[in-house]
Amino acid sequence: MNGLNFDHELNHMTSSNNTNPLDPEEFRRQGHMIVDFLADYYADIEKYPVLSQVEPGYLQKHLPKSTPHDPEPIETILQDVKDHIIPGITHWQSPNFFAYFQCTSSIAGFLCEMLCTGFNVVGFNWIASPVATELETIVMDWLGGMLNLPNSFLFSGNGGGVIQGTTCEAILCTMVAARDQMLRRVGRQNMEKLVVYGSDQTHSALQKAAQIAGINPKNFRAIKTTKSTSFALSPDSLRSAIRADMEAGLVPLYLCANVGTTSTTAIDPLGSLCDVAKDYGLWVHVDVAYAGSACICFEFRHFMDGVEGVNSLSLNAHKWLFTSLDCCCLWVKDPSALIKSLSTNPEFLRNKAFDSKQVVDYKDWQITLSRRFRALKLWFVLRSYGAANLRNFMRSHVKMAKLFEGFVAMDKRFEIVVPRNFAMICFRINLPSTMGKGVYQNGKVGDNGPMLLKENITTANELNKKLLESINASGRVYMTHTVLEDMYVIRFAVGATLVEERHVIMAWKVVQEHATAILSNN
Amino acid sequence: MNGLNFDHELNHMTSSNNTNPLDPEEFRRQGHMIVDFLADYYADIEKYPVLSQVEPGYLQKHLPKSTPHDPEPIETILQDVKDHIIPGITHWQSPNFFAYFQCTSSIAGFLCEMLCTGFNVVGFNWIASPVATELETIVMDWLGGMLNLPNSFLFSGNGGGVIQGTTCEAILCTMVAARDQMLRRVGRQNMEKLVVYGSDQTHSALQKAAQIAGINPKNFRAIKTTKSTSFALSPDSLRSAIRADMEAGLVPLYLCANVGTTSTTAIDPLGSLCDVAKDYGLWVHVDVAYAGSACICFEFRHFMDGVEGVNSLSLNAHKWLFTSLDCCCLWVKDPSALIKSLSTNPEFLRNKAFDSKQVVDYKDWQITLSRRFRALKLWFVLRSYGAANLRNFMRSHVKMAKLFEGFVAMDKRFEIVVPRNFAMICFRINLPSTMGKGVYQNGKVGDNGPMLLKENITTANELNKKLLESINASGRVYMTHTVLEDMYVIRFAVGATLVEERHVIMAWKVVQEHATAILSNN
Repeated sequence: MNGLNFDHELNHMTSSNNTNPLDPEEFRRQGHMIVDFLADYYADIEKYPVLSQVEPGYLQKHLPKSTPHDPEPIETILQDVKDHIIPGITHWQSPNFFAYFQCTSSIAGFLCEMLCTGFNVVGFNWIASPVATELETIVMDWLGGMLNLPNSFLFSGNGGGVIQGTTCEAILCTMVAARDQMLRRVGRQNMEKLVVYGSDQTHSALQKAAQIAGINPKNFRAIKTTKSTSFALSPDSLRSAIRADMEAGLVPLYLCANVGTTSTTAIDPLGSLCDVAKDYGLWVHVDVAYAGSACICFEFRHFMDGVEGVNSLSLNAHKWLFTSLDCCCLWVKDPSALIKSLSTNPEFLRNKAFDSKQVVDYKDWQITLSRRFRALKLWFVLRSYGAANLRNFMRSHVKMAKLFEGFVAMDKRFEIVVPRNFAMICFRINLPSTMGKGVYQNGKVGDNGPMLLKENITTANELNKKLLESINASGRVYMTHTVLEDMYVIRFAVGATLVEERHVIMAWKVVQEHATAILSNN
Repeated sequence: MNGLNFDHELNHMTSSNNTNPLDPEEFRRQGHMIVDFLADYYADIEKYPVLSQVEPGYLQKHLPKSTPHDPEPIETILQDVKDHIIPGITHWQSPNFFAYFQCTSSIAGFLCEMLCTGFNVVGFNWIASPVATELETIVMDWLGGMLNLPNSFLFSGNGGGVIQGTTCEAILCTMVAARDQMLRRVGRQNMEKLVVYGSDQTHSALQKAAQIAGINPKNFRAIKTTKSTSFALSPDSLRSAIRADMEAGLVPLYLCANVGTTSTTAIDPLGSLCDVAKDYGLWVHVDVAYAGSACICFEFRHFMDGVEGVNSLSLNAHKWLFTSLDCCCLWVKDPSALIKSLSTNPEFLRNKAFDSKQVVDYKDWQITLSRRFRALKLWFVLRSYGAANLRNFMRSHVKMAKLFEGFVAMDKRFEIVVPRNFAMICFRINLPSTMGKGVYQNGKVGDNGPMLLKENITTANELNKKLLESINASGRVYMTHTVLEDMYVIRFAVGATLVEERHVIMAWKVVQEHATAILSNN
């Protein structure tokens, strides 16, 4: 019996080894199958609930407890994708996805992920795949040009750009560069005294980067903003915070300013903030993750005025520039600051090109050694659509957002909470106008005084929360929320690649229907 | 004239907006085109020089200086890929790529990158796409099971796994967790006293992680290893280093041990190292980036003996497990240590599932917030090939490495520098046996004493360097080098998905031919 089993095992080994896992003809067959699968997915995408409606733990009921011993055919696996994976997906590419900020795909972005995965090169240094490095330096200058960045951020002006995964990485890398630069000046014994600044609207990426870089958690400043400045960071507040820290013997290090915050797309005044920062020697990074894409249009570019004063900026092309996740573009004025902090030069990576100092080795510009050939995505997207069309896409999304804004403004049950800057609207059921109680608007207290005010805020918050949950449970659209000065606010972001006016009109109908139902029950 | 230009611009805007960048039928057409392009690429891959032969700066001559204004058709862009991109690629998927360690693609890995990019979800928390999180917890337990990891590293045993991009991230995240855990115990005033340990063979990822995490650069210990222990880290050396640091008032923090170093696939004795580390309260991480994949075979699993004592381990499935870049699997015994250091909970991400504490939110297990749906890759690969076949693939690569090892052993001009453990061979031209001079073998000095020894080392190094450069310039194969105890050594790693015996046989012929030419000229 043992002999038989052994024979069986041998046969099995032989037969299953016959097909190489990269056999070109099998690659072709299965590749075409997936292209059709995805084309059908996009054609049918509106049939799925946007927000996945599964319960925690749903998947383990459908999958075995361990890796199958034998190979399974692609057909079986794809059936499982349909039956068990898709129900657990929240459909970020749906035109009815109005949550967070979008993460946009496009055909060009997709094709390039295919090429990037197909070539599957590891471009840690120039020699490991010269084109991966060279194309990246070129397209980062291209995109920098579209943004009308000062030459000092481009390779052609002795700055330079690098494609990272996400804003968290971009902030972490620049913070580490700033930290080491400062410690070289003031001595490592001051490590615990370094202070990092942002506003209370700055993305959590800043806090996380500070945690990772070893900044004392007590020295993380989320400076308060208010509705009166549309949640922009006030240069005066920054100066006061810096002065207080210096009086306490601390060492101001790094400011992360924002053009387009996550909560409300607030815009910090870069010019004045840089003036303050310069007085105290801070490194200024500006996070234009979302809104940077809109700034390729001349009518939005002014939001980035003052960028010439910052040390670094990062833009997530995967958010609104169709490259698909992940593609975070980071530009710095002084690449050598990054390189000093992030380089290591192990023997196994040494090569003639590196020794000649003629080439960029991007491994020294980022956290990781290995890096994917992401430049290909940006190159394909910029060429496939062209600068003019990319600007048109941005404008069409902004136009749709204006449409929604108009709808909200016409319905007296609702209010717009902060002025719209780009393609995102912050709105909510305006309790007083619907129920005739005390009013909380523009930061002022209504007739019935502070007691009722607090009660009303709570009630209004509960109503809006209920409204959002009810909208999202319908599966027809997906929106998310934020909290501003204790107000629960619904965010409506337009930006999915497939979105058209009809989706925005439908989304508003869904909001109205659910609001009517909820308000009539209260 | 202005009016005319404006009309033209308007027409242009209308016509170019007609095609949505995710139009399903256009997606289908272009998607099929790229699948065929890549299938042809794999069929023809041996025609290209493995190592790109371009000169620094070659690409900018072929590309415009800025983003094109108008869209360009896919056909034009693909022609540029053929003409200008492919010449700059070092072909990591070529069967003649024997450099570094491979970064393996497979059909299954490719299909899943397509699906992952197609769905393009951002799985930062459970609700953002439940299946992305749930599938990851399941497949990490699957792969952990294949590795026969102690239950304490699996979700089923209150540990757990997460897919990160690369080893650098895995080490950084665990080091930050260890750092904060230690600082909570000893107080932040000891930040500058923390010490990180590895061997002089440990991957540069450790040094980089320490730099980023804010460890004082003076407190980074690369403990010396020698040929006598096959470059494994000696527990006695570790203990001495720790003791010396403690006597100097420092605080030992973190050890990165290795199973399969980059230079030589050296194996550190995990059990004894953990015993030492336990005595002094260090966090032990083990880097099994490359060799971990082989450890799914029972005959290699013993190299990981002692793993039950470590706190965390990481394996790059993109190296040898066919998932394509990037897919680094990190397991930890105590996820709460990671979460304490890496969590941030901004309002805009709060949701019912999170508040219920029933779900994993992977954003708190990694550096970045946004994350791709990488679990799909691992799931597809494990199912498509099955545990049995994956083991067979590993074994076939090891068998081919043995073949090459046999060739080297039979040619007296060469020596194997360290014993082979997996599928990588370290070899070099053995100068004394080819030129009859003093000998440096097994750490002993030959007849002619230390003076000639040094001279011989230099000559031998130059010869071997010349040999490697000449081999790689041929474009027929690509290998890389390392330096061991001042010896320049050629590395030959077998592991490309497409590699067959005939490629290994040919590679050896190439080595012999170039060696003959070089030696006859000396």
